[in-house]
Amino acid sequence: MEKMRVAILGASGYSGEELLRLLLRHAGVEVTCITSRQNAGEPVGRVFPRFAESALRFVAPDVARIAACADVAFLALPHGTASEYAMPLLEAGVKVIDISADFRLRDAAVYKKYYKEEHPSPALLKTAVYGLPERYRAAIRGARLIACPGCYPTSIILPAAAVLAAGLVETGGIVAASLSGVSGAGRKVDLPYIFPECNESVRPYAVTGHRHLPEIEQELAAAAGIPALAMNFLPHLVPVNRGIHSTIVLQPKAGLAVEQVTAAMQAAYAAEPFVRLLGPGGLADTKHVTYTNMCEIGWTLDAHTGRLILSSAIDNLTKGASGQAVQCMNILCGFEEGCGLR
Amino acid sequence: MEKMRVAILGASGYSGEELLRLLLRHAGVEVTCITSRQNAGEPVGRVFPRFAESALRFVAPDVARIAACADVAFLALPHGTASEYAMPLLEAGVKVIDISADFRLRDAAVYKKYYKEEHPSPALLKTAVYGLPERYRAAIRGARLIACPGCYPTSIILPAAAVLAAGLVETGGIVAASLSGVSGAGRKVDLPYIFPECNESVRPYAVTGHRHLPEIEQELAAAAGIPALAMNFLPHLVPVNRGIHSTIVLQPKAGLAVEQVTAAMQAAYAAEPFVRLLGPGGLADTKHVTYTNMCEIGWTLDAHTGRLILSSAIDNLTKGASGQAVQCMNILCGFEEGCGLR
Amino acid sequence: MEKMRVAILGASGYSGEELLRLLLRHAGVEVTCITSRQNAGEPVGRVFPRFAESALRFVAPDVARIAACADVAFLALPHGTASEYAMPLLEAGVKVIDISADFRLRDAAVYKKYYKEEHPSPALLKTAVYGLPERYRAAIRGARLIACPGCYPTSIILPAAAVLAAGLVETGGIVAASLSGVSGAGRKVDLPYIFPECNESVRPYAVTGHRHLPEIEQELAAAAGIPALAMNFLPHLVPVNRGIHSTIVLQPKAGLAVEQVTAAMQAAYAAEPFVRLLGPGGLADTKHVTYTNMCEIGWTLDAHTGRLILSSAIDNLTKGASGQAVQCMNILCGFEEGCGLR
Amino acid sequence: MEKMRVAILGASGYSGEELLRLLLRHAGVEVTCITSRQNAGEPVGRVFPRFAESALRFVAPDVARIAACADVAFLALPHGTASEYAMPLLEAGVKVIDISADFRLRDAAVYKKYYKEEHPSPALLKTAVYGLPERYRAAIRGARLIACPGCYPTSIILPAAAVLAAGLVETGGIVAASLSGVSGAGRKVDLPYIFPECNESVRPYAVTGHRHLPEIEQELAAAAGIPALAMNFLPHLVPVNRGIHSTIVLQPKAGLAVEQVTAAMQAAYAAEPFVRLLGPGGLADTKHVTYTNMCEIGWTLDAHTGRLILSSAIDNLTKGASGQAVQCMNILCGFEEGCGLR
Repeated sequence: MEKMRVAILGASGYSGEELLRLLLRHAGVEVTCITSRQNAGEPVGRVFPRFAESALRFVAPDVARIAACADVAFLALPHGTASEYAMPLLEAGVKVIDISADFRLRDAAVYKKYYKEEHPSPALLKTAVYGLPERYRAAIRGARLIACPGCYPTSIILPAAAVLAAGLVETGGIVAASLSGVSGAGRKVDLPYIFPECNESVRPYAVTGHRHLPEIEQELAAAAGIPALAMNFLPHLVPVNRGIHSTIVLQPKAGLAVEQVTAAMQAAYAAEPFVRLLGPGGLADTKHVTYTNMCEIGWTLDAHTGRLILSSAIDNLTKGASGQAVQCMNILCGFEEGCGLR
Repeated sequence: MEKMRVAILGASGYSGEELLRLLLRHAGVEVTCITSRQNAGEPVGRVFPRFAESALRFVAPDVARIAACADVAFLALPHGTASEYAMPLLEAGVKVIDISADFRLRDAAVYKKYYKEEHPSPALLKTAVYGLPERYRAAIRGARLIACPGCYPTSIILPAAAVLAAGLVETGGIVAASLSGVSGAGRKVDLPYIFPECNESVRPYAVTGHRHLPEIEQELAAAAGIPALAMNFLPHLVPVNRGIHSTIVLQPKAGLAVEQVTAAMQAAYAAEPFVRLLGPGGLADTKHVTYTNMCEIGWTLDAHTGRLILSSAIDNLTKGASGQAVQCMNILCGFEEGCGLR
Repeated sequence: MEKMRVAILGASGYSGEELLRLLLRHAGVEVTCITSRQNAGEPVGRVFPRFAESALRFVAPDVARIAACADVAFLALPHGTASEYAMPLLEAGVKVIDISADFRLRDAAVYKKYYKEEHPSPALLKTAVYGLPERYRAAIRGARLIACPGCYPTSIILPAAAVLAAGLVETGGIVAASLSGVSGAGRKVDLPYIFPECNESVRPYAVTGHRHLPEIEQELAAAAGIPALAMNFLPHLVPVNRGIHSTIVLQPKAGLAVEQVTAAMQAAYAAEPFVRLLGPGGLADTKHVTYTNMCEIGWTLDAHTGRLILSSAIDNLTKGASGQAVQCMNILCGFEEGCGLR
Repeated sequence: MEKMRVAILGASGYSGEELLRLLLRHAGVEVTCITSRQNAGEPVGRVFPRFAESALRFVAPDVARIAACADVAFLALPHGTASEYAMPLLEAGVKVIDISADFRLRDAAVYKKYYKEEHPSPALLKTAVYGLPERYRAAIRGARLIACPGCYPTSIILPAAAVLAAGLVETGGIVAASLSGVSGAGRKVDLPYIFPECNESVRPYAVTGHRHLPEIEQELAAAAGIPALAMNFLPHLVPVNRGIHSTIVLQPKAGLAVEQVTAAMQAAYAAEPFVRLLGPGGLADTKHVTYTNMCEIGWTLDAHTGRLILSSAIDNLTKGASGQAVQCMNILCGFEEGCGLR
């Protein structure tokens, strides 16, 4: 059988590296093109020695060239830049799976508010499908442009949407405290991210106005069937390479029993290949999901305060970015959904 | 001037080590006795090579012996065990500064509920003073038995009590998400604490019923001037040696302006030697307080949800345990409050 | 095609976990039995949540039961214990791949000297094949009992044997300084291995008499074609989960040119699927090999002192233990050598 | 008593931060000036929140200004830049304690070979005293310009010089394998030093031609009483913030007994306040010396190979840089040698 040809734009960052890790062993695809402005001309093994056995070389991004050699393009580019490539690639008939933030928000005004600039391709927002298979699998199947969720949003939406969609909790007053490894900041060379500044350090940041907040709110509101909601999202940076854990506190509707939560979780996710339900009282641990595409979810109904506490863990580079992108590609292209991901 | 003589019971754990670090360089005291059942007979440098220059040796704990050589005894013992020593030491005229959990709760019934056994010395609960200098300095001055706060409680009570005492926030619905380094579990040899199980792992635990919860609730209720409150305390274990960060979400009373929070914080702590106010928008970082007795506090009023977000950081072994105990000793014994702590 | 049936004895340690990670995705085998005295009866997901999707349960080790359900048995048991199972399993017709130290040394007297007890099955020492494919591939093909190399030995023998076998260096005066992650100590619950004792700590240990020393010397002497040699092996513990790096200093024979080293390395390893040659001046980094079965090797001829410096990195749990064991199984059973390892 | 006035040039790096930590609590000195081109005008607490209680502000470096307010100047500047300030400060009568590499080598030609540029002030090389108190205390007392040793050199010279000076070992064939925390690279914002590139990574670098090599060789030759020697220095980067461990292998002269090594170590260091002798068989651990000015030293005579193995640990920022500089200042200025360092 002929292999599907894929390109990775912006392949020299951590999401790009993770895409390479997953796609180079995927039986159904061939990586035909990897781009990096900075590393153009270099063999992939110069930047990522663990791929030294691959003959791939970085090239400068060029739409015509990509269109000539790829059926699907992954955009692991900074937000803003991703938009510049999405439209011409789509016009050239290449399907686009975007890992950046450019097409996640349905409302260009919200994009402007959080990203401080006009959305570069507002027309595309309508055609983009939010690439969270557990909630949009059918739409992903027929998509041309997939906007993969952010890492924090994946870890929060998966557990919270299930109980919101089931009408078990109030939509107001949600608090999500998330802890992320440093690769979540990308392969960014900046003082706050050098080793001695991160190691033996625990710190929150952007506790108001984080760019992932509107995306989380959009999807939780959608799950609840309401136009909008407002919540508190509290991201923290912790000294691990990979992994995000989110603890989410919600206000149950009167009389909620934990069995209803269990039933809602099972209805939503029991058949999902990449969600692991830990059961009532279960607490997730990033250690159990790193280097996998799995999302662990546990839930606890606190008799003391009456609140519902959700706990979830993902690998921010896999289920939180590149693994989920590959899962979307598998759905889009008719591969078995877990192909290359186990 | 004659030095005050101090004993440390249970000196072979991390709190004991930190007490030694602080007291061996304290100009006003002489450490005359360190106890450890397990290490009795060994020179302190065998267990803690960084104190190899000290001539101290561990001895088995013996009340008569301690009473003969110490004016003040620090109890760095497990809960339950601390009680066994407190009463006879007090009767022998030794002042007691307890780092364990035995005398923090004013209500023996609450102790039983959370510690699953009868309180061993309920009579002493009335005489014990809660050793949080920023809130109980006057009482500490005249105390005979000081119950030093837990590490998590210190990090949560300091920021939250200020706004509760000022009547700026509701007492219901408080959520505190805390992140602790592994030394917070003590020098415990158990599978969950070996390096490969903690490193590259982020995980919550005891999200309901943690033993520090009633202590936090007791003190926050006291600050608010109400008999009791119920809140969510969400502890997480993260791979650092030292440090606790707490992010606390509270519901402001109607019309609260951030300037009122700033004023309340300054009124409470501007003159405190071991509280660092980061101002509105400030976010604490454990890296800035490790190996110090300082508590960093920042506050943010979230225009989006209307919630007040507090951020605090301490070193769990210093301000969260042994440093605070030394601060209490300084107050109790008339030393300058920061002696040995800078 | 019918799958080969494999058993893992001692599956609840880190080597066992790594064997599970590799074998559960190996297309040619079925894991039919995993043993653990301590966890007998529990589903594998209780101990290792990342395998929660597997239906396997731990059972107590029982030779008859294993012989009934397995063609090949991996022994991830402590030394001494492995021997007890090897003989009856072999007699029952099960091929044995041992990850312990029991069959690595050809001389029972050396075993006694380093392990402080009589070798439990000296007769088997003659039939055991040393499971280092790059040096013993032909013998592995026909083996019944394979003794997989230790982690340190793998990282030192691979680079050093190539230059010794080529006669490029002296056999005296070799110094190997190795740095190992903490998983190298196994899933051992002991004070030196708890997180706060390892994190922010760098320390050598067993700089004389380490149990891996005689194994390294045996194989380097064999490569050099001499009966024995004596060298210095300097292991250090560093705070990472996985990975070993070895830096090895050797005395070249007169007139050695770096090109000769390069030629010897290429002759030995250019065709090897799991050796990556970094070329002259190359320095290995554990980061590039973790979670892979690869060994990175670089070499530098120091003009200043005339010494040859080799640098190598492996993942101690993969190429240093379980990955190499699977590679041996692939050779032994006629699978493609990299099956399950890419 | 009037306090001595000190300035710190280049105070915004990690060595500068450590100087501040030590000098702000030093009873005999007042820090009157801290310079940083990049942070000029900012209060010290903006860059280092742990010093927020200090009123110091960074200023741009200006010799006249420094000369007007300081008796002693610490140069925590990059090599090359330090020289530019040393001469005019000395001419203005300010004593200079340099932490950079500019005045450590006695031979300008060696400087040029390793630093790839002409030495900027070769005349000063003759007047500079090498700031290793354990070997040059008398000269430090009368110095005007002190060149503090590098971090690696301190960890290697202290143990090795003692046995070389006593004539116990050969001067050829020395191998030193050193492991350093990441703060050793300074507060450098560069890709190899961001957290995800260092964490879970162990790697050697500069195994030939490291800039600390000639300094180590110079001092070991001096200790041995010979003009020069050549050795192998093998630095490795490991994921800790602070600490260096060095393992050094030397060839004993015929018939050496370990008691002679013990005697030489005791003769050299028993009276030293900042050397801790671990005795024969002792192995150092960075964990025992971090945040202290101590150097731990152990020694082992390997009966198997006949080699002598030394093990040493320091905190690279304290005994390896700023602590040693303060120790030198104490000697130079007549303070008790451990003032501010305990």
